[in-house]
Amino acid sequence: MTDVQQDALNKAVESITGDMSALWIIIAAILVFFMQAGFTLVEVGFTRSKNSGNIIMKNIMDLCVGSIMFWAVGYGIMYGSDTVLGGLFRSSPTEQGYFFFSASDWHNLFFQTVFCATAATIVSGAIAGRTKFSTYLIFSAILTTIIYPISGSWYWTFDKNAWLDVAGFVDFAGSSVVHAVGGSAALVAAILVGPRIGKYEDGKVKVIPGHNMVLGALGVFILWLGWFGFNGGSQLAWGGSDTVAAGSVIINTNLAAAIGAVSALFFTWIKYGKPDISMTLNGALAGLVGITAGCGAVNAWGALAIGLICGIVVVLSIEFIDKKLKIDDPVGAVSVHGVCGFLGTVLVGVFASEGGLLHGGGGKLLLVQTYGSLAYIFWAGITSFIVLFALKKTIGLRVTKEEEVDGLDVHEHDIEVYPEFTTTEK
Amino acid sequence: MTDVQQDALNKAVESITGDMSALWIIIAAILVFFMQAGFTLVEVGFTRSKNSGNIIMKNIMDLCVGSIMFWAVGYGIMYGSDTVLGGLFRSSPTEQGYFFFSASDWHNLFFQTVFCATAATIVSGAIAGRTKFSTYLIFSAILTTIIYPISGSWYWTFDKNAWLDVAGFVDFAGSSVVHAVGGSAALVAAILVGPRIGKYEDGKVKVIPGHNMVLGALGVFILWLGWFGFNGGSQLAWGGSDTVAAGSVIINTNLAAAIGAVSALFFTWIKYGKPDISMTLNGALAGLVGITAGCGAVNAWGALAIGLICGIVVVLSIEFIDKKLKIDDPVGAVSVHGVCGFLGTVLVGVFASEGGLLHGGGGKLLLVQTYGSLAYIFWAGITSFIVLFALKKTIGLRVTKEEEVDGLDVHEHDIEVYPEFTTTEK
Amino acid sequence: MTDVQQDALNKAVESITGDMSALWIIIAAILVFFMQAGFTLVEVGFTRSKNSGNIIMKNIMDLCVGSIMFWAVGYGIMYGSDTVLGGLFRSSPTEQGYFFFSASDWHNLFFQTVFCATAATIVSGAIAGRTKFSTYLIFSAILTTIIYPISGSWYWTFDKNAWLDVAGFVDFAGSSVVHAVGGSAALVAAILVGPRIGKYEDGKVKVIPGHNMVLGALGVFILWLGWFGFNGGSQLAWGGSDTVAAGSVIINTNLAAAIGAVSALFFTWIKYGKPDISMTLNGALAGLVGITAGCGAVNAWGALAIGLICGIVVVLSIEFIDKKLKIDDPVGAVSVHGVCGFLGTVLVGVFASEGGLLHGGGGKLLLVQTYGSLAYIFWAGITSFIVLFALKKTIGLRVTKEEEVDGLDVHEHDIEVYPEFTTTEK
Repeated sequence: MTDVQQDALNKAVESITGDMSALWIIIAAILVFFMQAGFTLVEVGFTRSKNSGNIIMKNIMDLCVGSIMFWAVGYGIMYGSDTVLGGLFRSSPTEQGYFFFSASDWHNLFFQTVFCATAATIVSGAIAGRTKFSTYLIFSAILTTIIYPISGSWYWTFDKNAWLDVAGFVDFAGSSVVHAVGGSAALVAAILVGPRIGKYEDGKVKVIPGHNMVLGALGVFILWLGWFGFNGGSQLAWGGSDTVAAGSVIINTNLAAAIGAVSALFFTWIKYGKPDISMTLNGALAGLVGITAGCGAVNAWGALAIGLICGIVVVLSIEFIDKKLKIDDPVGAVSVHGVCGFLGTVLVGVFASEGGLLHGGGGKLLLVQTYGSLAYIFWAGITSFIVLFALKKTIGLRVTKEEEVDGLDVHEHDIEVYPEFTTTEK
Repeated sequence: MTDVQQDALNKAVESITGDMSALWIIIAAILVFFMQAGFTLVEVGFTRSKNSGNIIMKNIMDLCVGSIMFWAVGYGIMYGSDTVLGGLFRSSPTEQGYFFFSASDWHNLFFQTVFCATAATIVSGAIAGRTKFSTYLIFSAILTTIIYPISGSWYWTFDKNAWLDVAGFVDFAGSSVVHAVGGSAALVAAILVGPRIGKYEDGKVKVIPGHNMVLGALGVFILWLGWFGFNGGSQLAWGGSDTVAAGSVIINTNLAAAIGAVSALFFTWIKYGKPDISMTLNGALAGLVGITAGCGAVNAWGALAIGLICGIVVVLSIEFIDKKLKIDDPVGAVSVHGVCGFLGTVLVGVFASEGGLLHGGGGKLLLVQTYGSLAYIFWAGITSFIVLFALKKTIGLRVTKEEEVDGLDVHEHDIEVYPEFTTTEK
Repeated sequence: MTDVQQDALNKAVESITGDMSALWIIIAAILVFFMQAGFTLVEVGFTRSKNSGNIIMKNIMDLCVGSIMFWAVGYGIMYGSDTVLGGLFRSSPTEQGYFFFSASDWHNLFFQTVFCATAATIVSGAIAGRTKFSTYLIFSAILTTIIYPISGSWYWTFDKNAWLDVAGFVDFAGSSVVHAVGGSAALVAAILVGPRIGKYEDGKVKVIPGHNMVLGALGVFILWLGWFGFNGGSQLAWGGSDTVAAGSVIINTNLAAAIGAVSALFFTWIKYGKPDISMTLNGALAGLVGITAGCGAVNAWGALAIGLICGIVVVLSIEFIDKKLKIDDPVGAVSVHGVCGFLGTVLVGVFASEGGLLHGGGGKLLLVQTYGSLAYIFWAGITSFIVLFALKKTIGLRVTKEEEVDGLDVHEHDIEVYPEFTTTEK
């Protein structure tokens, strides 16, 4: 074959592979989109019925606000080619068309938009049942416009010269970039908003049961489903070695979720004498969050190890935050996304096939993973603190006592979600 | 390269692109299929529990009847190459294999089947809680066999010589062809069936709250999810410029839904003093219906404008139909699908990048969009009236008063959907 | 074109087609994964609320245990190239990397894993409400590690020399390999565990209604959705004639489900005077199970015939098993998966376009289909009996009377799934 012929063939193959990759990214993004329904159901199911309408509104609105703001501003901050302060911030020149996106790789915009909405929605669960709706809306807008896009720009860029990328940091689909960021913001928000009334009284920790474990479980199934897009789609390509890599990512994701649930199940069975349902569900989510950083860097054994550890740690963390720190996080969002996001990122330094401590890579990767993840946690924590503190001092974070006791649905939205059914608090 | 070589390469690329397109169409169709579950949940959630079983049955059955009838007859009427009366009707010669479909482009049949089922299921919500199940079955069969397929044949054909296509009408995924058709049939049905008992008594308009807003919200998430297939799949191709176009369609769809919810939220917040949950959910749906016509013809700004307008109009329309016209449409189907379907079609004439009023195209497109959409509304309205009026005079449209008060589940299906829970009407 | 040129083009096309096939298989597998949520909702909705948490745990755990065990052992037993006892058992040499899977076709592993989990989860419904959770876990592990993989190895292999494949057996996506295997194990389990307390007393058969038909219906929609992946993905390829074949499979699947629901609807309408909701839902599932064997071998008419027959038989079978055999199968799993799995397999011998009795193929295929399906039923029945009988004599199959009456949630998991709602048994 002549060079011209080979060239024509190569170009055709490259073009089709690009289209096939875009197809996979769009489908993956659609799956990630559906995770919003999963988050909503988990939060609704794990909390009291009197706030369910408010939870629906928060979860729909962070998606809506995030979709618009990320299109308008966030994407340009995250992927812009101009760097400021050594890459601490980015911006996008007009000709890129990244602000008020008008470029042509819509599949990338869509994929990144639903990731952004995921980071935002994590916060919702930690402050359920006592937070002002207007305040949540404003915070969501800031998180999706600035806080998360800057997080993203530190590692995920097209030019591959973001500082954490250069440093050798590994966070395939965002254990830190998305989940620890969301979890850290959730922690700060939960502290600043304070616990629900009655949660910590007379030195006692009250268990406030969720009102519908079936919907919570359906939410977990939907999240698990969506995670195949979240992690698998983060390969950002399909074809040849990318097909193999994305397939391995999906198996790692599934194995980590599976063993996360199994380990939480047996750990609670041994600890309490009964297999705990909500902890088992959280164990699956913990495995999913934990493997998100390393799903492209570890083998199946590594995925199992990470999932196993996260499934146990999430139980300990939820109890520690609830009973020792006395921070009221109704759905365990800080433990699932924050703690396991951090842990999953760090464990890449242990289990990565290349560079991991157990694979003869020494401690260098472990170090990078640790400070990279901490950078995200501090970034999201500090910026969230500034924003939420300012909101607290101005419009306020919290509904009135009466509104909280009666439920946010009645006062904030003038609705009962189940008007035909009589409910009693336990 | 010689011509022979180039030719062989082109053929290979074309063949693969065709397969990739078929893959996207199948996946999109699977997403649209899932919208049936979304419609079911919205209708169940937004109405009383005593009719939930009946609603399930209606929604499953219009899918089942539609799947069979569209395979047998509908597809041939919609895509057949024989035209009658200047294209007012179509038929398919035997050799095409379109009646009792036996051709080879199964992905097209599947995609069109789920669209047809969508048009049918829209009617269900508007007549919830008082309509005879047998009557609904017959009407569904006629709508999916004849009314909708003829609608489709006026614009979506393989030969591109349908009268509205020739006229320059733009309805990318069916704001009019599917949604306004369904919405118009729904309006006629709601009028002919009459309001639920107690809805309009002593000159007062009674609010009959839905029994499960959580399921309603899950339904909206599922519909939004499915709409990526509905609109994105309507590109009917993947690869090269089609990849870019389909990506833009998906972003437009998401932005319109997002801002539709946002605008309904703020509009009700200002109007009633509280952000209304069911209106916000309907705002998202209104944005989705509205952008369905123009998602391939407008840019992101146009999508935002259309979504914004629909999100406000749907609130006004639901109130107007409910309180002024006193037509009882329990889920707002006429406003969401009919009014916003019409509005979204017309607004293409304003915002289309090519030919839109605001893009210097003058009023020609606006005119075509208006009369095209009205043609669909009249077609579906008149045919539905004829069918439903005939049914009213023969087997009847409505259950007895006793059946309605006790609930359709007990009388029509001998079941309670929540037998363990005590319900009370509000 | 020279041979070299043609060769290069062919190789490029083949490589891309392989990638496109893998993409379809991954997407199909993700859809099948979601069926786990469908099975959970059907089982939860069709049974009493007091056991819902336990049902969630069973359904999540068979997926988790199955995912791990099938990766570790099952896949190697199912696809290994070493045969023992004339193919009765298989094993995989180390270099294949099939035990503790480390080969590169991850998409195949994932697709087969979710099939394996499906077979396991079928059992859950038949023994709902009275079975020990620990016993279920052990049985799930054995089924996914050994029983199902050996079933698979009799027909689905890469070398195409499995004994049933050689014999000409046709079971495209597993009416027998998956569903009849699960259904047979379910039957044995239901018999050995025995009926729920109060189900058969004083010679009367008590109807124990499910507690949430809406969730049950959502489960059916999700299962139907997932089935497009289950059957369509079983083409195991995309491109050219495979695109046409997979499209036909999907239409056959949809038509059989549709007419299964329709036939169950009218059959119960005629039989009881009212269209029965749970039977109609089961009719759709019966059509889906029934067409799973033949969806690649029959035309649309054949699919309609199979679905029609299964929709009626499932009603008769559920009644026969419940009222005559007095075997307590709360969700009808034995009838849906076992009976219709067998029936669907056998009917391929009647309706297959090649070799079917009605297409002039004589009785040979009918015979092969019958003994092939019976082989699966006996294999799964006998092995399940051995395992469950051993479990019965050791740790026991059944919870105590007190636990059953109070509900498994309180005793096995210390939780109420709906703590705010008061429930009453009917």
